[in-house]
Amino acid sequence: LQSKLPDVGTTIFAVMSKMALDHHAINLSQGFPDFPISDKLIQLVNKYMEAGKNQYAPMPGVPELRSAISKVIEDKYGYLPNPETEITVTAGATEAIYATLAALVNEGDEVILFDPAYDCYDPSIRLNGGIPIHLTLKQPDFSIDWNKVEESITHRTRVIMVNTPHNPSGAVLNHEDLKTLEELAIKHDLIVISDEVYEHIIFGHSHESALKYEGLSKRCVAIYSFGKTFHATGWKSGYIIAPDYLTKEIRKVHQFLVFSVNTPVQYALAEFLNDRENYIHISDMYEQKRNVFQEALKDSRFEVIPCHGTYFQLLSYKGISDLDDMSMAEKLTKGHKVASIPISVFYQNKQDDKLLRFCFAKNEDTLLKAADILCKI
Amino acid sequence: LQSKLPDVGTTIFAVMSKMALDHHAINLSQGFPDFPISDKLIQLVNKYMEAGKNQYAPMPGVPELRSAISKVIEDKYGYLPNPETEITVTAGATEAIYATLAALVNEGDEVILFDPAYDCYDPSIRLNGGIPIHLTLKQPDFSIDWNKVEESITHRTRVIMVNTPHNPSGAVLNHEDLKTLEELAIKHDLIVISDEVYEHIIFGHSHESALKYEGLSKRCVAIYSFGKTFHATGWKSGYIIAPDYLTKEIRKVHQFLVFSVNTPVQYALAEFLNDRENYIHISDMYEQKRNVFQEALKDSRFEVIPCHGTYFQLLSYKGISDLDDMSMAEKLTKGHKVASIPISVFYQNKQDDKLLRFCFAKNEDTLLKAADILCKI
Ligand SMILES: CSCCC(=O)C(=O)O
Ligand SMILES: CSCCC(=O)C(=O)O
Repeated sequence: LQSKLPDVGTTIFAVMSKMALDHHAINLSQGFPDFPISDKLIQLVNKYMEAGKNQYAPMPGVPELRSAISKVIEDKYGYLPNPETEITVTAGATEAIYATLAALVNEGDEVILFDPAYDCYDPSIRLNGGIPIHLTLKQPDFSIDWNKVEESITHRTRVIMVNTPHNPSGAVLNHEDLKTLEELAIKHDLIVISDEVYEHIIFGHSHESALKYEGLSKRCVAIYSFGKTFHATGWKSGYIIAPDYLTKEIRKVHQFLVFSVNTPVQYALAEFLNDRENYIHISDMYEQKRNVFQEALKDSRFEVIPCHGTYFQLLSYKGISDLDDMSMAEKLTKGHKVASIPISVFYQNKQDDKLLRFCFAKNEDTLLKAADILCKI
Repeated sequence: LQSKLPDVGTTIFAVMSKMALDHHAINLSQGFPDFPISDKLIQLVNKYMEAGKNQYAPMPGVPELRSAISKVIEDKYGYLPNPETEITVTAGATEAIYATLAALVNEGDEVILFDPAYDCYDPSIRLNGGIPIHLTLKQPDFSIDWNKVEESITHRTRVIMVNTPHNPSGAVLNHEDLKTLEELAIKHDLIVISDEVYEHIIFGHSHESALKYEGLSKRCVAIYSFGKTFHATGWKSGYIIAPDYLTKEIRKVHQFLVFSVNTPVQYALAEFLNDRENYIHISDMYEQKRNVFQEALKDSRFEVIPCHGTYFQLLSYKGISDLDDMSMAEKLTKGHKVASIPISVFYQNKQDDKLLRFCFAKNEDTLLKAADILCKI
């Protein structure tokens, strides 16, 4: 059997979560919250199950949800997507990314992405015949070197993938970045995939969605996640905003990839989204958690890297240990009982900057306990 | 933009369901039930949501569900799959099929399938670089011509896809078929994809699962659907049984396609599966519905084609009209207010045998109303 992904093993998130479990470590590795989701949301799912909304949803998503999404997007970004032709509900952002690449990348097309990159990007590009072109974000602030981007564009470049707020670094793109991206995308006729799943988790900046930029909104696939926004990562629901000519192709694939998404969850989300109170305070909640975690680490030997968004905190252990980051993550999990994610796995070149990623989407108690351990290292 | 599926439009199921809705027709087109799902199952999902099971499930499925599945499979087919390495929970059978093809089909591999074929097979093969080889089922009984199969096998043949009970025809494979399939698969070193989503809906036959045949169980990907079995098509959950060397590759893709499947639904299904009473009477229920529908049509001018499994009834309108089957389906929907599925869309050669498919997963009232209309045509 000839593997199509010979160099791919089990995702690092499954590996570290399992190690945390096996060694009874505090699990700050895989990104998911340890606090409950909204009771209201649970009751809504239950209500729609009891009301009999248990059969196939329409392939692009239930109309009520697409209409609610369009209002939220207009409210946040001043861009009103057409629910009929520009919004598709997906089985999480992961399916959104896969369906987009499967629909838009042709054999031999080059796709530019930035390392450290979320781990599904590269294999999803390759499985669909694309050639991933990995550029490295600048240190120490994980910003994009736009000159390097332009130099890397060839006649085979078709897509450029960005992610803001950025997992794993916590960096965010600013207005200048988006203007440059818009300019390059238009000049070289590129499609932009904008992974914005942490749009609601951003601190002291306003989120620069690609949808705010007219030139981008016409050539961009913007990807969102209800799992991240409402911290229900196990519900596997997200959505895509893309202009009609791209949506049409993406839906052709989506219909054969999963056909549709959990129906009662869609109805529940539709009703939940209609009350702004349900999502406008999310950044505040996570900013508080970030501050608690950072404050508790201030006397530790780890260096706290600035975090502008997402629920991930990078810590540098330069000067503490010469171990490579995978070994360091393993040592912390098994020996000290705090699990994190090594950052080198997100680099194609396995670049090891002695950085570990800690998820702070946790109860303050959990964060303080973990910080306490880290302070003793 | 160069479409990767230039000849694909919206799936016929979405087209006909929309037409039914727009024209207030009784919708016997897309396959889904119009009766409620189990209250117990709804309460279980609610219980696990309230218990906080709302974050990512493990990538291959929650252990409790995989363990429950292994027991059901052993009980039904005398084959005990290893839950750790041979069972993967998927976002419905559609994702299962797509992930399997994406993992196992390499550029230029030939995949044999039988027309009329479920509509996702062909595009999912092509999207993954495979070459679909369409063979036609024999008339009038929709059986497989195994000589033709052997003649069609080349050195590039990699996969053969079967579906029993068969959608849309209602035919089932018998012991001889499976023995021949096993022999051919071993002789030519082929992988078998066995779509068995209607395993629990079979009348007067016992289901010949590929898993019953040792030679097949070692080279077969068997695909199942909780949506069909528990008539909750909108919950999007199914699973794959495959030997470890195939499961390993399929999971590599699954983890980047959707990562995991709705968590509370998985826990609920695990508990529900543990009581055999919850699934052993399913065939009886549907057999009763089939009989009601067939009986009510006995004085109609349509010819009732034998139905041995699935919840679909084929009717022939030969002698009633010369319209092609798409036009006939449209006429019945718009003019007579009964929606069905034309069968030619499931043939690559668009072969028109004047057959329409009616879904009888409906309340008896609905079936009698529809039959009443059909009797007047
Ligand atoms: C799909 S599991 C990974 C969750 C996540 O987004 C992360 O930890 O970065
Ligand atoms: C995915 S919608 C189609 C449902 C179905 O299996 C059918 O009608 O054949």
